[in-house]
Amino acid sequence: MLNPKEALDIVLATVETLETEATPLEQALGLVLAEDIISRDDIPPFDNSAMDGYAVRWEDVAEAAADHPVTLDVIDDIKAGDTPLKEIMPGAAARIMTGAQMPVGADTVVRVEDTTTDDGGAREAFETDESDGSSFKPVTITVKVKSKGNVRRAGEDVATGEKVIDAGRELKPAEIGLLASLGFPEVQTVRRARIAIVTTGDELLEVGQPLEPGKIRNSNAYSLAAQITEAGAIPIRLGIASDTKEAARKLFTEALDQADIVLTTGGVSVGKYDVVKDVLDEMGAEQKFWKIAQKPGHPLGFWVLNGRYVFGLPGNPVATMVCFEEYVRPAIRKMMGRTYLFRPEVQAILTSDIRKRPGRLHYIRVRVQKKNGDYYAESTGPQGSGILKSMVLADGLALIPPEIESVKAGERVRTRLISQPEDH
Amino acid sequence: MLNPKEALDIVLATVETLETEATPLEQALGLVLAEDIISRDDIPPFDNSAMDGYAVRWEDVAEAAADHPVTLDVIDDIKAGDTPLKEIMPGAAARIMTGAQMPVGADTVVRVEDTTTDDGGAREAFETDESDGSSFKPVTITVKVKSKGNVRRAGEDVATGEKVIDAGRELKPAEIGLLASLGFPEVQTVRRARIAIVTTGDELLEVGQPLEPGKIRNSNAYSLAAQITEAGAIPIRLGIASDTKEAARKLFTEALDQADIVLTTGGVSVGKYDVVKDVLDEMGAEQKFWKIAQKPGHPLGFWVLNGRYVFGLPGNPVATMVCFEEYVRPAIRKMMGRTYLFRPEVQAILTSDIRKRPGRLHYIRVRVQKKNGDYYAESTGPQGSGILKSMVLADGLALIPPEIESVKAGERVRTRLISQPEDH
Repeated sequence: MLNPKEALDIVLATVETLETEATPLEQALGLVLAEDIISRDDIPPFDNSAMDGYAVRWEDVAEAAADHPVTLDVIDDIKAGDTPLKEIMPGAAARIMTGAQMPVGADTVVRVEDTTTDDGGAREAFETDESDGSSFKPVTITVKVKSKGNVRRAGEDVATGEKVIDAGRELKPAEIGLLASLGFPEVQTVRRARIAIVTTGDELLEVGQPLEPGKIRNSNAYSLAAQITEAGAIPIRLGIASDTKEAARKLFTEALDQADIVLTTGGVSVGKYDVVKDVLDEMGAEQKFWKIAQKPGHPLGFWVLNGRYVFGLPGNPVATMVCFEEYVRPAIRKMMGRTYLFRPEVQAILTSDIRKRPGRLHYIRVRVQKKNGDYYAESTGPQGSGILKSMVLADGLALIPPEIESVKAGERVRTRLISQPEDH
Repeated sequence: MLNPKEALDIVLATVETLETEATPLEQALGLVLAEDIISRDDIPPFDNSAMDGYAVRWEDVAEAAADHPVTLDVIDDIKAGDTPLKEIMPGAAARIMTGAQMPVGADTVVRVEDTTTDDGGAREAFETDESDGSSFKPVTITVKVKSKGNVRRAGEDVATGEKVIDAGRELKPAEIGLLASLGFPEVQTVRRARIAIVTTGDELLEVGQPLEPGKIRNSNAYSLAAQITEAGAIPIRLGIASDTKEAARKLFTEALDQADIVLTTGGVSVGKYDVVKDVLDEMGAEQKFWKIAQKPGHPLGFWVLNGRYVFGLPGNPVATMVCFEEYVRPAIRKMMGRTYLFRPEVQAILTSDIRKRPGRLHYIRVRVQKKNGDYYAESTGPQGSGILKSMVLADGLALIPPEIESVKAGERVRTRLISQPEDH
């Protein structure tokens, strides 16, 4: 029987990165870039003002000070989006707005707050002057300004020809914004994985149905669809297969037609009504493993069929969720081109004793809290693999190694932080 | 001029939680529950087997051991979904599958692995026996079993009448699964916020257009839409308003019709072409603040109009993203009913000197790394508010207080981890 590490290694060695496709930028959030982005432009594309103020020649104002005011003729009014036409000659200045292109001759901007006009109130004049552009009041500068101050240089963010974003990078809001500024309305990305869910079992009812003797509601399809969505992939729900080979085969065929990964739940134990394994065998699937020395999630199976991957997940709600978290989620991330496949891990201090049988790795659902630089892991209560409440309360999985029979309160255990983004 | 803390307090005191609505469970991921969930059923609904094995009366097998085998008649075969009809009398057992309902009389399950049959291979018999249910081979038990072992008790996860999930909880995959198992095909949630984006400026080109003199591409609409999506809200992109009051008023009216929050970018400086403030005044908006002692993001404004909220964001790409992160995202989270509004903060060690003018709080974009239990913050390079590259590389914002003029490498600074989920 495999241990969890061996099983995960097999999964990750088996699944391959999906093909790439052109994706409109507004749909690219969270996807992985599949091309190096080389800028075709300077960003910003031209020298522009970082402030509302006056564009000047620095040598005209180099000596400006409160006791040595410098007055300049204002010859133009340049707003963002304008192409300035007048050159700034010695002794002249142009009113200029944030983001507006610098006029020829000027190399420095003086903030409006550091100037005055004849009537004293430069700022008010600046805001309210409805001049038609042919006659402006002169401006007086009373503060020393740095040479080239308050000017954003062409190409200071990105230069033409520069590699701006490497293939393999996950596209977050800043990358999306940068790509927009560089004029890429679409980019090549690794496509989103499509994940089909087939739940099996004559005991399953749809969620809206009242309970009947011996039956339970199909919760796994819901928790799995939510986990798939959280992982950035697309869930495809294909309903419930009864415990017959015919029903399973029909839904598997449908699933393999549409999906990159098929998740089945239930039907993988040794019970004679567990048909998933038999049907996959008959369909020619290659079994990579079945059964792992872990709890919960012992009867997990993994198959490959026509370049699609099938995970046979256990039927118990917690076991299903833990197996998704530990095996399916890293597989989806690898298929979608991500580099970081694993959640952060800490050595957390247990707050109560844990006893277990030796032989398997146990995933204890815990609440993790950080106090004075240490992490503390508190069991979320009864750990039966049907007890979803234990998962609702959990933000960590404490990993108790196979050979260990008990861990005492105060001892440290390796703990996965399952509410935190992957970091390695 | 307000400091950032005062401004954020005003925002959070102003915005109100959105109304609730009935949401289908499959669309509820990430939303906040708006009702207490009281279970109407026991989960599991009936005592059932946790293993594939044999349902027995414990007193029959209490003494079983390798040197004291106990043989029982097998009278039934119960699979998941069945309603068992035969009572288990002393000396009898029923074959039972994982998840199947326990028959009357039996209180314990012996795992198939701990049994043998006449031909020696209990497991194989279990898997392949095609018996019609009228004649089964007797089973021999050779291992001591705990009383009530391998049985999941009715209600052990959730009891009828129990409050299972409190109003106010964010719905994650485990909650979704639990709600499905409890038979809630839809739940009351706080609805998703709708956020309109209006970018202003004659200098803006659409992303697919080639650059022209004095023009830049409209990247803010893209980065903001991505930030809104990441925050769990719905972005509504309304295009570019030119720098005229008429254009701004038309788009604002459209935005206020559709959205809970309107984000404008640009048009909030002192420049005479900055029309956002004027138009909002004329439309009767109540200005809550304008200008904050911070860099970047100084000209941020916040208004209320007919129960909608308007953030006037700066036009510079980094300033826009930082203001979203610091003010709009917490506001969206509060409106969507979330309890945790703020990212984790650490005291990170700076890896290089930082110098700044006194007077404003500076947000330095940093890369945060953890080494030997300490966090290190490294500046992502030139920090101009137009330089999106600095944001692409950042996973933290180091907050340099207003009065500070320099921080040396090795000193600790308060650092917000902007790639981590909110924790307070």
